[in-house]
Amino acid sequence: MKLKIKKLKLSAGIPLAMLSPETSELLGVHPGERVLLYNPLNKKKTSSVVDIAQGIIRKEEVGISEELASFLKLGKLKEIEVILSPTPETLFLIKKKFLGKSLSKKEIKMIIEDIVSNNLSEAEIALFVSGMYQKGMNKKETIFLIKAILDTGKKLEIREKIIADKHSIGGISGNRTTPIVVAICVAAGLTMPKTSSRAITSPAGTADVIETLAKVDFSMGDLKRIVAKTGGCLVWGGGLGMVPADSKIIKIEKLLKVDPEAQLLASIMAKKFAAGSTHILIDIPYGKNAKVDKRKALDLSEKFKAIGKAFRKKVAVVLTKSDEPMGEGVGPSLEMRDVIRVLDPSKKGPSDLEAKSLLLAGRLLELTKKTKKGEGEKLAKEILYSGKAFSKFKEIIVAQGGKVSEPKLGKFKKEIFSKKNTKVLGISNTLINSLAKVAGCPLDKYAGIDIKIGLGQKLKKGELMMTLYAESKSRLNEALNFYKRNKPLSLK
Amino acid sequence: MKLKIKKLKLSAGIPLAMLSPETSELLGVHPGERVLLYNPLNKKKTSSVVDIAQGIIRKEEVGISEELASFLKLGKLKEIEVILSPTPETLFLIKKKFLGKSLSKKEIKMIIEDIVSNNLSEAEIALFVSGMYQKGMNKKETIFLIKAILDTGKKLEIREKIIADKHSIGGISGNRTTPIVVAICVAAGLTMPKTSSRAITSPAGTADVIETLAKVDFSMGDLKRIVAKTGGCLVWGGGLGMVPADSKIIKIEKLLKVDPEAQLLASIMAKKFAAGSTHILIDIPYGKNAKVDKRKALDLSEKFKAIGKAFRKKVAVVLTKSDEPMGEGVGPSLEMRDVIRVLDPSKKGPSDLEAKSLLLAGRLLELTKKTKKGEGEKLAKEILYSGKAFSKFKEIIVAQGGKVSEPKLGKFKKEIFSKKNTKVLGISNTLINSLAKVAGCPLDKYAGIDIKIGLGQKLKKGELMMTLYAESKSRLNEALNFYKRNKPLSLK
Repeated sequence: MKLKIKKLKLSAGIPLAMLSPETSELLGVHPGERVLLYNPLNKKKTSSVVDIAQGIIRKEEVGISEELASFLKLGKLKEIEVILSPTPETLFLIKKKFLGKSLSKKEIKMIIEDIVSNNLSEAEIALFVSGMYQKGMNKKETIFLIKAILDTGKKLEIREKIIADKHSIGGISGNRTTPIVVAICVAAGLTMPKTSSRAITSPAGTADVIETLAKVDFSMGDLKRIVAKTGGCLVWGGGLGMVPADSKIIKIEKLLKVDPEAQLLASIMAKKFAAGSTHILIDIPYGKNAKVDKRKALDLSEKFKAIGKAFRKKVAVVLTKSDEPMGEGVGPSLEMRDVIRVLDPSKKGPSDLEAKSLLLAGRLLELTKKTKKGEGEKLAKEILYSGKAFSKFKEIIVAQGGKVSEPKLGKFKKEIFSKKNTKVLGISNTLINSLAKVAGCPLDKYAGIDIKIGLGQKLKKGELMMTLYAESKSRLNEALNFYKRNKPLSLK
Repeated sequence: MKLKIKKLKLSAGIPLAMLSPETSELLGVHPGERVLLYNPLNKKKTSSVVDIAQGIIRKEEVGISEELASFLKLGKLKEIEVILSPTPETLFLIKKKFLGKSLSKKEIKMIIEDIVSNNLSEAEIALFVSGMYQKGMNKKETIFLIKAILDTGKKLEIREKIIADKHSIGGISGNRTTPIVVAICVAAGLTMPKTSSRAITSPAGTADVIETLAKVDFSMGDLKRIVAKTGGCLVWGGGLGMVPADSKIIKIEKLLKVDPEAQLLASIMAKKFAAGSTHILIDIPYGKNAKVDKRKALDLSEKFKAIGKAFRKKVAVVLTKSDEPMGEGVGPSLEMRDVIRVLDPSKKGPSDLEAKSLLLAGRLLELTKKTKKGEGEKLAKEILYSGKAFSKFKEIIVAQGGKVSEPKLGKFKKEIFSKKNTKVLGISNTLINSLAKVAGCPLDKYAGIDIKIGLGQKLKKGELMMTLYAESKSRLNEALNFYKRNKPLSLK
């Protein structure tokens, strides 16, 4: 049925179409069900959940939420074809995985295509994620998943023999090495079109952190110009449409803070391959307090290398034991502050963050043969201490429309002091991450935690342990309540 | 924050609050996140998903969807307190089950309470259902689940020593014995305040079928009056608020057509106990083509009896082998037609439906000691053939504001003929159910399938096999496409 487009200034978090009761009845669609919309000009087709509204929408109209409009790229289109969306047949395939059976290449592609075109609801995607998590995916399925994610997205095409990349599987609060590693390696002459994600289960992703100073959301064309000019970039991958399936799956994973392994591998590697990366360094922090233990870290390491082999790319893995948060700040703006302090030779940055960044940059310089084995860290240190890395970082930030300055912090803050003479026995990454998220991270970029203590440190009564930052009074209170109930620090 | 209530004629399938961009920023809430609303007059508190709308909602207002208004029972309330909804802590508990750990009584109650008060989104409930399905629940957890579902709902209080009830676990298309069994048993003098559900994984539940002739949605008070007058009723349980948690869980189960066992047991038994039932008959059809095989049926049978024992009720189970759909009609109105044909002594109904109904009614008359063991079916047959059951059925339908008449069928229909001389080797319940649902069942109550053939039957070329009914042209086409692609009949 052809309906007049009524663009609504309505943001629902998901694509949403509003219909009148009369039109819904004609189409045979009920509230919460889906319709299919088709834009003939650009051939964009998508499903959308339906709300039924009397008064707001007329019989001949369809109301379009901002998310839906941005998906369909309506331009000046006045009318659009709206039909009843059939029950997605991929539900049978999701059930197949849910019941523990393997999926074929074609089946995985069908599911990923339905996810990309909004044919599957969040609850349905949740059941797919759950199936992947509970039943696992074998090596073949993982490779099919990567191919499906790549095939439903766009590729960044940069003509260089060597394109370097790095990635951390995360899990350690404040582990913001990427901007430092990129700055060092690009200053050393490598090409690094680094695309990062926003936070998955952490309070900040690298994209959230960079966004406190510069734009991170670019078109493919702009991105190529930035890389041509500076040799690198630090942008958000999600906006490039390279792996559209991935961001929807990640939204669900956030709910339970689970990463099914196949999806974790696919999510990381698909992004690298879409960016054209040829030499990829993977950082796997392990330990009691990390995402994985040593055994699991070694297992993941093998899987990353196997995927690299299957796609004919050079993959190296760095395993590091990590028992506490890295740096001092947790949250986009606070982590940017630590990054600048490490990069700027005139400032003193957190030494753990500096050491880890040098280790990773060194390893990547070796993998790409910028230097001999065993000499990467030395070269990285020279570039960092000489200020060349900081200059390169500023150059990239400027190319991304920003300016390096002292990061802003949340309007509301609360300092937390030690109540007695004591000793720090443990700092939980999980609880620190949850605390920062309750405070509003990553969407509230100036929110977060500034941690002033380290593992094993002795504290005097009244000594400052951490400062909570938030952008609203209610979030700050939530965070303080969470801190009191959940005790992220173990004190003697 | 106190906001002015703006009731919207908006139906979204879930409770929905609309806020202006300004108010959202003040509250610190983003699109798709949740707020908590509190009605001080009746102490109703609920979470709601937030849409952010410019133009429709003013700064000082909150827009309330129909689902949200009906939940909060706003009456003449002008303003309502709206605050940021904290991340539900029960997500940790859902994750616990997801990872395969047992939940305590208190933990199960917290999850069920959060489901009832909309604190958990559909994707989050999907992850809970998935955890129950993948990891299972032990006997203790199942009993806790029943108690939690009962505790978050209302009870029907009827003062009778014996209150009889029956339930089928479903899976067989057209297996609409309940109205017939209730009519026979109430005519025999039993009290049966029968509450039924709407369809879960099938194209029609008993409530959907009764609704084609009478109202099924009553208050507790009305229901008591109907039972006092006629001895029985055939109503929808969902509207009574007896097991509000259950209906939300069922909505998710519908997506993948999965019933986690603990939830299946809890869902059935909680409804029986909330209705005050003392004598409960459970119908478990088994077979290749049913929901369960014989081994599983025997296992379920033991579990139903164990729950009966734990709650000190009499529970009997009937196992029947079922290899094809029952009756002829599939879909609310078509099934009602079959029911009337069995009940009305002047008409010829499907013999399989009649036989199964007599078996169940007989067994229930024995369990409640209305007759001796071995004589139940005889008594049931006398009551059915004498027309007493039909009179009782009409009495109940009239008490529920309806009238027994020839059921209406869908406006659009398509007859499907045999293309050759052949033989029916199989009729898939699963595919017949899916076909009826694609045709619009259960929401479109006049839609469905009229099956004119049986297992083993020889067919001539051009012989009518089935008629598809739908309420819209698009649904009929969808159904026909589904029929062609999926072939629910196996022919020689």
